[in-house]
Amino acid sequence: MTRAAEDGTTDTTVVIVGAGFAGVGCARVLARHRVQVLLVERNNYHQFQPLLYQAATAQLAASDVGTPLRTLFHKDETVSIKKDEVVSVDAATRTVTTTDGHSYRGEYLVLAVGSQPNFFRTPGADTHAFPLYSLADAQRLRSRIFELFEAADRDPKLVDAGALTFVIVGAGATGVEIAGALADLVHNVLPDEYRDLAVQATRIYLVEHGHAVLAPFSRDAHEYAIRVLQRDGVQIMLGTSVKEVTSNSVVLSDGSAIATRCAIWAGGVRAAPLAANAGVSRGRGGRITVLSDLTVEGFDRVYALGDVADIPSPDGTAFPQLGSVALQTGQWAAKSILADIAGRPRGSFHYHDKGIMAMIGRGAAVAEVGAKRHELHGAIAFAAWLGVHTWLMSGVRSRVDALVSWGWDYFSASRTPALIDRPDAATIDWGDEDGETPAAPGPAQLKPAAR
Amino acid sequence: MTRAAEDGTTDTTVVIVGAGFAGVGCARVLARHRVQVLLVERNNYHQFQPLLYQAATAQLAASDVGTPLRTLFHKDETVSIKKDEVVSVDAATRTVTTTDGHSYRGEYLVLAVGSQPNFFRTPGADTHAFPLYSLADAQRLRSRIFELFEAADRDPKLVDAGALTFVIVGAGATGVEIAGALADLVHNVLPDEYRDLAVQATRIYLVEHGHAVLAPFSRDAHEYAIRVLQRDGVQIMLGTSVKEVTSNSVVLSDGSAIATRCAIWAGGVRAAPLAANAGVSRGRGGRITVLSDLTVEGFDRVYALGDVADIPSPDGTAFPQLGSVALQTGQWAAKSILADIAGRPRGSFHYHDKGIMAMIGRGAAVAEVGAKRHELHGAIAFAAWLGVHTWLMSGVRSRVDALVSWGWDYFSASRTPALIDRPDAATIDWGDEDGETPAAPGPAQLKPAAR
Repeated sequence: MTRAAEDGTTDTTVVIVGAGFAGVGCARVLARHRVQVLLVERNNYHQFQPLLYQAATAQLAASDVGTPLRTLFHKDETVSIKKDEVVSVDAATRTVTTTDGHSYRGEYLVLAVGSQPNFFRTPGADTHAFPLYSLADAQRLRSRIFELFEAADRDPKLVDAGALTFVIVGAGATGVEIAGALADLVHNVLPDEYRDLAVQATRIYLVEHGHAVLAPFSRDAHEYAIRVLQRDGVQIMLGTSVKEVTSNSVVLSDGSAIATRCAIWAGGVRAAPLAANAGVSRGRGGRITVLSDLTVEGFDRVYALGDVADIPSPDGTAFPQLGSVALQTGQWAAKSILADIAGRPRGSFHYHDKGIMAMIGRGAAVAEVGAKRHELHGAIAFAAWLGVHTWLMSGVRSRVDALVSWGWDYFSASRTPALIDRPDAATIDWGDEDGETPAAPGPAQLKPAAR
Repeated sequence: MTRAAEDGTTDTTVVIVGAGFAGVGCARVLARHRVQVLLVERNNYHQFQPLLYQAATAQLAASDVGTPLRTLFHKDETVSIKKDEVVSVDAATRTVTTTDGHSYRGEYLVLAVGSQPNFFRTPGADTHAFPLYSLADAQRLRSRIFELFEAADRDPKLVDAGALTFVIVGAGATGVEIAGALADLVHNVLPDEYRDLAVQATRIYLVEHGHAVLAPFSRDAHEYAIRVLQRDGVQIMLGTSVKEVTSNSVVLSDGSAIATRCAIWAGGVRAAPLAANAGVSRGRGGRITVLSDLTVEGFDRVYALGDVADIPSPDGTAFPQLGSVALQTGQWAAKSILADIAGRPRGSFHYHDKGIMAMIGRGAAVAEVGAKRHELHGAIAFAAWLGVHTWLMSGVRSRVDALVSWGWDYFSASRTPALIDRPDAATIDWGDEDGETPAAPGPAQLKPAAR
């Protein structure tokens, strides 16, 4: 039972911090067994992270990728929700404290606070680049992207100042997906809507310090992704890192600079800041070290799940930071807590590999599923991608209508409103239009799509 | 034809400033006749103003009440759109100039820039009150409303500081509609979703300096509105004006103060600021004086339409500032321009009275239509309300799906996501919680709904 103690601390059975796939997945299983849960999350919604790039490019509305937590749990009477930000953890007493001084103590404590963008101390990146890790990020990026199209439409001279140049940093799944979605927008939407705009002057750069696109995938997938992206006019720069991001350029490791007002940061993530304030040992990427049963070493009723946990895999490698891993750790931890309450022994977390997949462009995806790493390209990969995301969504949401509606819209090529509704992100200081701006390296023209 | 002149001025047939009902209605008729139109609007979307109160209370998503202009006109090849803010007008040359120094000159110029909230110089109102006149207003208000519920849920002590007190200033249609929608939220949504919250401590005040609710309607409607609102627990304070709005209170004319963190300003509108910079004569509410053919006196190819125009009605009274009036002026002006181009004489604007209507609460509306002022209450009024809004929407949008879907959701009592996604509006300084805060006057408890 949830109750407030004399000192203002609220006691309950399970305190879950964070409402991503891990936290919500855990809460849903516990709710089905009517365990008292207190879910603390700084937003009032769960964000469907794999589709943020679609919200950023107006393929989905923001409201399609965010579900209010109180809507998600409104039938679960044993789940309490607090919109609050946890700033410290006392693992010994399983107590968390929030920014406004509230404390929540559980018989079990679940830390599922996820990741934050990793700018790798690149100068200017945290100030000037647009990360794509939260719903707010997606809304800001969408407003920036469409404001740039409007600015170039008003004043074609701004194209030389980078108004139609997009630089995506990082060619993992997020970087590839946003590059593909941007290219899709440029080829299939803009020509129809912006009649005065030199759409063909749009440039999309995908900058990757490594030597592969979609590195976690197979070599065939690398090549397939490059082929599709190049077909869609994306300029891929491998073996290139970013030295600095300024308000009007991205400076590359070779010293050249690309004039842009929209650097999109898809360069990787690290553990959320709370991991460093939990007083527990940390491993790769600052993530919390957990045992094979997902409890934090030394604290057998404290769990760390999903992206914030450094989970030992049977072969010693790290589990990928995926929604499907996070969801499974959440569901698994809930069952483990239920077993503990019932006096049954806990087991070790076992991951059912749902594969890895990424959307590269309209009708083009790669999916590698199972031990045999089946490679799927094109429409079949797309179907697999849709299936996995439907499964992911059903794990945290009671209805799948957003995805179904999305699938329909995607095939019928209709769109949700591209509202520029974040003035903070849409305000661009163009300065002296005649001033020096860095020129773009390499071939500058966006190739027309071969479709 | 649209063409850029040597001096950077863009010439075209008709320049329309503002994309509300008047501007979009005018552009659509001209587009059907393939007249070259340049539509200048500071947002990249048309906002469906009559439903803003629903976006503010999460009955509709923000994307349902805003349609991108480029989507609206993507099939109209003779319509160019510029997202730009006009700051000055030269009526003599039919030229407008924007913030970034662009000039647009038309053979005809249409000013349809609408209204802005009128705070009547009430101290603090422009800083602390939430107006409800734009999509951005609705998004900010929604974030504030739901943040307050979350804050009170986290810390019940904040209820005494006004966390669950809403003060609506002005009992015209907007004030009544937002009061009814808030009461609906409190009675029908919150109890289900906020189990730890003392929902019954919510207070909704409707403050009106006049002596009637829905003053433009008949006496029967006044009484019906009061009955419905009181049934839903809204406390109505007639003959009361607001002396000041502070960060944590609304000070009333009798010297008392209501503790609140959400003062909603529905106290009236005045002409948009551009009206004062157009160098033309102005009438009631700072609006531009027009002749019976809607042209600005002395400038026979300059039109002022909708809310920004002071339109002479046959009986000498002012036309109400309604979407249906604005839409009709837009359509009429377009036909007048077509007649002029064809060398036919112009006529006087004639308003087809679509009546006035307002939604008071779930299933309760008033509608007064036609010369006989038929009064409709309850379900029939609701049907009329739905019909008029469908007509309004079809006048500016090619599809009515948002409204149809809204009608369905309304009856099935489902809701769109109540995302708190405007951090600027969701940040509240609660200060010293033990400090003095003004107490609420009068009976404080929200009455339970009699349903």
